[in-house]
Amino acid sequence: MTRLLESYVQDAWWSPADTDDADATSVRDASTGEEVCRVSTAGLDLPAALTHARTVGQDSLGALTFHQRALLLKQFAIALTERKAELYALSAHTGSTARDNLSDVDGGIGVLFTYSSKGRRELPNSRIIVDGPPEPLSKDGSFLGRHVYTRLSGVAVQINAFNFPVWGALEKFAPAFLAGVPTIVKPATPTGYVAEAWVRILVESGLLPTGSLQLVSGSVPGLLEALDLGDTVGFTGSAATAERLRSRVRHGVRFTSETDSINASVLGPDATPGTPEFDAYVRQLFAEMVTKAGQKCTAIRRAIVPEEVRPAIVEALTQTISARVVIGDPRAEGVTMGPLVSTEQRDEVRRSVRALMDAGGHLVVGSLEDPPVRRADGTTGPADGGAFLEPLVVSFDAADAEAGSAVHEIEAFGPVTSLLGYRSIDEAITLVRRGGGSLVTSVATHDPEVAVALVSGIGAYNGRVLVLDRDDARTSTGHGSPVPHLVHGGPGRAGGGEELGGIRAVLHYMQRTAIQGTPRMLTALTGVWHTGAEADATGTHPFRKPLTDLRIGDRVDSTEREVTLADIETFARFTGDTFYAHMDEDAAAANPFFPGRVAHGYLLVSWAAGLFVDPDPGPVLANSGLENLRFVTPVVPGDRIRVTLTAKQITPRETDEYGEVRWDAVIRNDRDELVAEYDVLTLVAKEWPAAAEAVA
Amino acid sequence: MTRLLESYVQDAWWSPADTDDADATSVRDASTGEEVCRVSTAGLDLPAALTHARTVGQDSLGALTFHQRALLLKQFAIALTERKAELYALSAHTGSTARDNLSDVDGGIGVLFTYSSKGRRELPNSRIIVDGPPEPLSKDGSFLGRHVYTRLSGVAVQINAFNFPVWGALEKFAPAFLAGVPTIVKPATPTGYVAEAWVRILVESGLLPTGSLQLVSGSVPGLLEALDLGDTVGFTGSAATAERLRSRVRHGVRFTSETDSINASVLGPDATPGTPEFDAYVRQLFAEMVTKAGQKCTAIRRAIVPEEVRPAIVEALTQTISARVVIGDPRAEGVTMGPLVSTEQRDEVRRSVRALMDAGGHLVVGSLEDPPVRRADGTTGPADGGAFLEPLVVSFDAADAEAGSAVHEIEAFGPVTSLLGYRSIDEAITLVRRGGGSLVTSVATHDPEVAVALVSGIGAYNGRVLVLDRDDARTSTGHGSPVPHLVHGGPGRAGGGEELGGIRAVLHYMQRTAIQGTPRMLTALTGVWHTGAEADATGTHPFRKPLTDLRIGDRVDSTEREVTLADIETFARFTGDTFYAHMDEDAAAANPFFPGRVAHGYLLVSWAAGLFVDPDPGPVLANSGLENLRFVTPVVPGDRIRVTLTAKQITPRETDEYGEVRWDAVIRNDRDELVAEYDVLTLVAKEWPAAAEAVA
Repeated sequence: MTRLLESYVQDAWWSPADTDDADATSVRDASTGEEVCRVSTAGLDLPAALTHARTVGQDSLGALTFHQRALLLKQFAIALTERKAELYALSAHTGSTARDNLSDVDGGIGVLFTYSSKGRRELPNSRIIVDGPPEPLSKDGSFLGRHVYTRLSGVAVQINAFNFPVWGALEKFAPAFLAGVPTIVKPATPTGYVAEAWVRILVESGLLPTGSLQLVSGSVPGLLEALDLGDTVGFTGSAATAERLRSRVRHGVRFTSETDSINASVLGPDATPGTPEFDAYVRQLFAEMVTKAGQKCTAIRRAIVPEEVRPAIVEALTQTISARVVIGDPRAEGVTMGPLVSTEQRDEVRRSVRALMDAGGHLVVGSLEDPPVRRADGTTGPADGGAFLEPLVVSFDAADAEAGSAVHEIEAFGPVTSLLGYRSIDEAITLVRRGGGSLVTSVATHDPEVAVALVSGIGAYNGRVLVLDRDDARTSTGHGSPVPHLVHGGPGRAGGGEELGGIRAVLHYMQRTAIQGTPRMLTALTGVWHTGAEADATGTHPFRKPLTDLRIGDRVDSTEREVTLADIETFARFTGDTFYAHMDEDAAAANPFFPGRVAHGYLLVSWAAGLFVDPDPGPVLANSGLENLRFVTPVVPGDRIRVTLTAKQITPRETDEYGEVRWDAVIRNDRDELVAEYDVLTLVAKEWPAAAEAVA
Repeated sequence: MTRLLESYVQDAWWSPADTDDADATSVRDASTGEEVCRVSTAGLDLPAALTHARTVGQDSLGALTFHQRALLLKQFAIALTERKAELYALSAHTGSTARDNLSDVDGGIGVLFTYSSKGRRELPNSRIIVDGPPEPLSKDGSFLGRHVYTRLSGVAVQINAFNFPVWGALEKFAPAFLAGVPTIVKPATPTGYVAEAWVRILVESGLLPTGSLQLVSGSVPGLLEALDLGDTVGFTGSAATAERLRSRVRHGVRFTSETDSINASVLGPDATPGTPEFDAYVRQLFAEMVTKAGQKCTAIRRAIVPEEVRPAIVEALTQTISARVVIGDPRAEGVTMGPLVSTEQRDEVRRSVRALMDAGGHLVVGSLEDPPVRRADGTTGPADGGAFLEPLVVSFDAADAEAGSAVHEIEAFGPVTSLLGYRSIDEAITLVRRGGGSLVTSVATHDPEVAVALVSGIGAYNGRVLVLDRDDARTSTGHGSPVPHLVHGGPGRAGGGEELGGIRAVLHYMQRTAIQGTPRMLTALTGVWHTGAEADATGTHPFRKPLTDLRIGDRVDSTEREVTLADIETFARFTGDTFYAHMDEDAAAANPFFPGRVAHGYLLVSWAAGLFVDPDPGPVLANSGLENLRFVTPVVPGDRIRVTLTAKQITPRETDEYGEVRWDAVIRNDRDELVAEYDVLTLVAKEWPAAAEAVA
């Protein structure tokens, strides 16, 4: 008898007491039908797991800043990379080929790396995220509003699909972890042993904060009903299951679903046979059919092509399949397409294909019979206990595609695509929309007008749209591959949720709150200095303070400096910027914005630096940039300008001896009018002088 | 018999054929009980209204850009302002005092003005919104991703509460209109005649795009079930009704609810009697009780104060109420608090207060009896048919507040607050959280540490948090007043939705889609030039092109210019910026980022302007700012720099003779290394030379 899969709860491994548990579910190898393991959660204390996450997990993650969490994600990624051969070996049982493992195992690790990098580049090194600019709510500046995100107070429960046991869990775990919310992973039973393996690697790395990750290998009775405000559910799977689960959680629980949808891929009218777009379209369609044996929620279910091009697509696909597909056990040399995950799944796909045929479709590529397969030992023969299926194309002419509904509703979750003809761009748009909301639609065209017409018609019906042409055919990440930088999810049938999309996904585990108060209070609550809050210009010049000493609100109030016509001319000669507004009194006065000759904006900003800088070597290492500069009041000869520079936000780096300091810069004239405002970005050493050598 | 309220559907006024319709609902004056009008939708063709919105409404709004829609919002606001006396007069029937009208009528108009202004300042003058920066997805730059928002394809149905017939509808209408999505308003029956009046004003203004606004005065049987992907529902009202309605719409329909919640207001431990914060707290609590007779979803239902301060609060509130409250018909001189909207509502509030008392609360301010009231004719006497109620405070000691649940769950939707004692900041946080998610919590404290402790504990449980102290007591917009700049909504009990928050609300009527493709395709699809797309540096200098001629991708490729040590010293002397990295070879070389003395960043940016500028008078009127400047590679003496400037985004203004042009600026050195990149912002005339005089 095979082993019982373990769960990881309350920071310890757990398995059912009775290892002969008759209720345990048997999990079988996709190629051979042999039992791989058994799964049961009989006796598991799920409420205790919830409490553990909400207390211990919340506390341990709450002690870390965004950057500290992000660094841990990188270390997790490294730990998994070092042991990914183990994950590959286990994945073979699920039917995954070496190529399939790239999207699941390497793809999952890639998500961790991306979130680690984005977390450190795009988030502050603190625990809340400020959203948008301050909103003045009183004329005198004493009352204003700002939005902040704070993490949710509960647990992130994820319920995953069988097809991506690594990527599917990590793409939900990474943003929740970065937000500071502990996760409970509930993998799909048919591939749960792969999920158990990656969790084990992370546990054994010793890097996991206590309570930050738990794994429930098996069913979770009562778990959803036990969730409350502050908890989230992230579900991936079928639309029907999503609706069933959604009805079981209380309203205050955020429920996000990402469901397999009837995704489309449109061949543009310009992409006729012989064009690079036609070839790229066929290659992509082929890849989406055979990768993971088509068991991808993002796979192309509807290939929508000009009616007259349908035969050419069938011919090209047939050729590609016969040249490239070797069906078999992924452990066998040369196999390019594995089995489905289980014979139940294969039978379900066959039923769906028959339903498509009943609805007017013609099976134009492949057969529903068991294909001969290459076994692990290299021999070829019948499939035996394996869940193998040939790539299948069901074709509908334009009239049937337009009239029928089955082709837009039935999902055959395997190496299957429907081929639909269209007669006009508008009809192609209508067909895409009839999917009722999709994760992704791709469009093959080299004509920007075609792209604009199609995408403006289908945009609101898709979470992602990929435009394929000769210039990105080689570099495209592919129709079926969500990337961590971009949102994954879609409206309607696709679940109505969003995952990934960089930091956007982190925000799904946080609550946006509008904060109102004085600049002083907003400064305290956000950690970012707000105009009108206390500022201290009395002490040491802030350029002489390393990060250990510098405080937000530390300020330089400069002296005044008069701008003369000679200065303007000197600057014009030196820079070559002889724009008439600086050089020609009459022409400048004719300009709607200037009273006459005015100083260059860049002169003012350059002088401001001269006014606020402390020149000697010190903790301020470099000016790295400038943001949000607006020129408000022009400066005319005779005006005197001064600048205030106030430390606004301090972001120490975790792995460097320095950090970023954002300064609020305001230039005023001698009538106290606002001349310009902007943010100056600098790199500042954490310590000075001691650490200076370490930095160097 | 009073008139039957009309509906406005398919761009025409409609009323039931049989004006004696026995099914019509009678609507009564809140102060006198006299019938104001009757309401019925018997015979109304709701499916036709939906179709009208989805076709005619979508088309007419789709023909307009964001700025054009925004300008219409301003004109709507002006039209309503001119006739607001009519709205005031009608509102008196609902029980609204002159002060109450400020939040409903003037507040509603204010939302239109704010969205008009934000729409033009914060959105492009086009039809899609780009979200976030480009995400490179291939090393060679040929494949990238970006997020865009496109409007939803359906109709925005809003179902409103009775308490704000103007503001409540306009705060949903404005962002939907700006997004380009037509609205169907379904007001609450008790105050629907006020909604009919503002719709009539807009219709009579002749400004409404066809199909952009419809009004259904009365019930909407089957409407929710008829909605589909692309449609939205915005509901305001009770949590129970929200859940009932939510279950009636298909999953793909976005359903947002904003439900009256058990909001809290916490008095900080530092805000003892005698402090300005104590006084501000009591004033605010009082205002929230009497404004709209407490019929506000944002009103303070739980005043949470240090246990020992409870008696002082009761005393202060009692004094304020006796000094300031005159209950009566709002048409009578001197009345400061009107009736509830109906006697049914008053009876419901009495039931809720009794339930609070059954749960351990003590009625310490006010009485449940009918109060004597001032009638419209100025006499004082019994309430007769009016729905009057005194301000009521139900007090709970700290032990009861902590132990009980009724006080955190029962909402008495009238001039009622519960007063709860707390014994520690942690306990105060726990009490706030027990409301299960609120629209707003206010905190009165002058101590930033108290504010940080409280807000970090309650942030994720609230849509809005207001910190009240001596410095904003006078300028605060108030606990109960949502402002269009900030989100309105809250987690859990408060509905889990978000409204307002400036442009954030516009996005709720749009779909975010990740677009992948080449720079050329992303440029075509977004209207924003992307690095790597075609650029044209062969024609006329782009500074010589007015907006009518300028195209995105128009470019200047500058000549090279060598930076010498003398230049750096000249610039240092001229600007006063003698930072050691520019002046001292050894010190500069010791800096971790520099090989030795380097040019000032501002020198490079100033020279770049000299390299790309076309100096003669022309359509480029001014450099208005600069964004996202990053210095990448330092420039050392002997390096030669050059700049490319490419038109990236063009935003003509609707009401000016010029618009904004954003230019992509890239400085490189003679080794083709990236030195700096940034966006230059300019104002450019629409026509040249003809329109130059018009501009001037």
